[in-house]
Amino acid sequence: METPDNATEHPEEAPGATGIAAQDWATAAAEPQYRAAVVDLLGALAYGELAAFERLAEDAKLAPTLGDKAELAKMAAAEFHHFERLTERLGAIDEDPTTAMEPFAKALDDFHRQTAPSDWLEGLVKAYVGDSIASDFYREVAARLDSDTRALVLAVLDDTGHGNFAVEKVRAAIEADPRVGGRLALWARRLMGEALSQAQRVVADRDALSTMLVGGVADGFDLAEVGRMFSRITEAHTKRMAALGLAA
Amino acid sequence: METPDNATEHPEEAPGATGIAAQDWATAAAEPQYRAAVVDLLGALAYGELAAFERLAEDAKLAPTLGDKAELAKMAAAEFHHFERLTERLGAIDEDPTTAMEPFAKALDDFHRQTAPSDWLEGLVKAYVGDSIASDFYREVAARLDSDTRALVLAVLDDTGHGNFAVEKVRAAIEADPRVGGRLALWARRLMGEALSQAQRVVADRDALSTMLVGGVADGFDLAEVGRMFSRITEAHTKRMAALGLAA
Repeated sequence: METPDNATEHPEEAPGATGIAAQDWATAAAEPQYRAAVVDLLGALAYGELAAFERLAEDAKLAPTLGDKAELAKMAAAEFHHFERLTERLGAIDEDPTTAMEPFAKALDDFHRQTAPSDWLEGLVKAYVGDSIASDFYREVAARLDSDTRALVLAVLDDTGHGNFAVEKVRAAIEADPRVGGRLALWARRLMGEALSQAQRVVADRDALSTMLVGGVADGFDLAEVGRMFSRITEAHTKRMAALGLAA
Repeated sequence: METPDNATEHPEEAPGATGIAAQDWATAAAEPQYRAAVVDLLGALAYGELAAFERLAEDAKLAPTLGDKAELAKMAAAEFHHFERLTERLGAIDEDPTTAMEPFAKALDDFHRQTAPSDWLEGLVKAYVGDSIASDFYREVAARLDSDTRALVLAVLDDTGHGNFAVEKVRAAIEADPRVGGRLALWARRLMGEALSQAQRVVADRDALSTMLVGGVADGFDLAEVGRMFSRITEAHTKRMAALGLAA
């Protein structure tokens, strides 16, 4: 709660909002550093959706049944439509979507290459863990955004239904063969490690984005807040792993 | 024009319509053999759309630029929505989509496995040739369908924009390096050969569908008409290859 005054003045906008969270895009974007941070954020999110589309379409090939394959294809199509909304917004604010996405392509491609699932269950766990962590992260960030960007980010994080589907399938597989649980728990830990290492690389590379992440551009770095954000994300991850029947 | 009387009575329905083409689904489906043929057709078309989704998503990985990748992902998402409309219709007429699709999965999977493109241009040519032939074929069949099924089939054949995109990219590549044209012409011939051989297998396996294809269930087999249909499809293919800058 860096700016309690604003939070009290505009409780309907976002509780604990910084000055920017109470503003709309037109006002907030007058600050060049904020504008650059949002372009980075939308670019990263857009490439993430495109990569998620590709990953889900790829995983659809591993599906044991036609029904499972259709379910994954549906989620892939939903991710593509999120991608479209994000690139449309970038276009609307006169930014080239490709230019905005490119700085994040390598980190996301590397992550996906280094964590290619070897079977259907690993693919489900990866999609579930990856989407959930990304979603937690972007929700944390959304609280620091102007009202227009916040609405867009929250809209594209809307559940694509993947969570329930993955939980149900993975739990059933572990019930049928408990040894599967040990293997998938190791896999989830590896995913978390790779995700954190790629995220660190991105944060180190992109100053505007990093500055915004840790307390809002106006407020500068606040490492204690970053620490708390990572604790919240890790805690949520642990709970999700338990829901899957896995030790985190 | 097997039933000129009907065609004259209902010229707005489909020129040269058989008795069935002038009926709606509820009337036409009272004939069990017709109903079985339509379920086969929707199942084949639905699996084809799902396979097209997977193929385009896979080809997106070969895209030379992020913009090309997004373009292919968009087409993949469009194919998925066609798939959804077809499976929804199957559900609406109390047929299980998976059961309807399964008889066609092997032929389509085999086709895609045997014609995996080795680069971006081969992928584009395959998508263009494959979609065009499938589209020509289904348009021929649509003329023999009841009005409700015809409307659905024509709707899901609506251009997904792939044609122009592929023609533009392939022509530019041949202009830049004319040797590419020879390689792609061979590739297109191989695609046509594989497609015909898989189509023959399906036709041989599925009696109700085959009977409908060649002159309507009521009229029985008419091999001369099948021959004319294949001539029309092959002719259109040759014209398209010329438009691509390839000898067919």
